[in-house]
Amino acid sequence: MRRMAFLLVGVVTMIGVAGYVVTPSGHAAEEAAPIYGVTIPQGYRDWKLISVTHEEGDFNQLRAQLGNDIAIRAYRGGKLPFPDGAIIVALHWKRIPSEEDNKAFGKAQAFVAGPAVNLQVMVKDSKKYAATGGWGFGDFKDGKPSDAAVHEKCFPCHAPFKASDYVFTRYAP
Amino acid sequence: MRRMAFLLVGVVTMIGVAGYVVTPSGHAAEEAAPIYGVTIPQGYRDWKLISVTHEEGDFNQLRAQLGNDIAIRAYRGGKLPFPDGAIIVALHWKRIPSEEDNKAFGKAQAFVAGPAVNLQVMVKDSKKYAATGGWGFGDFKDGKPSDAAVHEKCFPCHAPFKASDYVFTRYAP
Repeated sequence: MRRMAFLLVGVVTMIGVAGYVVTPSGHAAEEAAPIYGVTIPQGYRDWKLISVTHEEGDFNQLRAQLGNDIAIRAYRGGKLPFPDGAIIVALHWKRIPSEEDNKAFGKAQAFVAGPAVNLQVMVKDSKKYAATGGWGFGDFKDGKPSDAAVHEKCFPCHAPFKASDYVFTRYAP
Repeated sequence: MRRMAFLLVGVVTMIGVAGYVVTPSGHAAEEAAPIYGVTIPQGYRDWKLISVTHEEGDFNQLRAQLGNDIAIRAYRGGKLPFPDGAIIVALHWKRIPSEEDNKAFGKAQAFVAGPAVNLQVMVKDSKKYAATGGWGFGDFKDGKPSDAAVHEKCFPCHAPFKASDYVFTRYAP
């Protein structure tokens, strides 16, 4: 019986690897993005800040880009291309008014990060992702990957930026 | 002679403590802000992200707030007031267009962090700063503290926000 249970765990784990990745903490199973198989990296919210973005127009978002230690070292050292293992995560939030700031300044001029819109992940693996500049891409909403059509747009959008190793974001001082 | 040298070092160190703080790395001496004596905390650029802000109007800035581990734990645990030792640093940058994003989207709609404008620091010490809600404030430009007139404005601006322990920034998801 105990052996059966172990076998069952093994099978479930294998199913997990195919469509999901069981995270090291074991608390959550993240579904992998189509095409690239990229998942939301564990602990990304603790990563160091690269920079921030304000997207006007249809987006009306505030964004922050965080990097794992490999990415941050490359940025700070000014080394391109990024080494394998570098991961950049972009947090996209709805841009909402800041009651606090506006009250303090007596003007409606301040906006802050509101609810999360989506999360984008770039993973550097020059062999695995050789066809897309060495980067794998993942787009997630509420922790779930967007569909293949969304992911087909990632690299064409980044392709013109070979000079910065296909990365938009520059490191903020 | 060696004893003289030691004495001299001691005197220089004492002078240092009065107007400056010799950083643990020994590489730089940071001048302390007037009124509060707050200095730029070592390694703050490695701290975790709290949230981001867009200030329109006269500011035209993008901002990010980072917290030390004590501050981040308090935010994530929803615990107010912040415990002593909590430090929040706000990085204020000029908001500049993003050539990369605008090219990728075919629209002039993206802005990113440009040159640093100033850096603001809030340090929680409920005894030392009892008269100002338990917070000491520091405003720095190019690593140098702004004058006393600037620092006199800090607490009056934060005073209405007792409910959030005088802190404007909310933690972004």
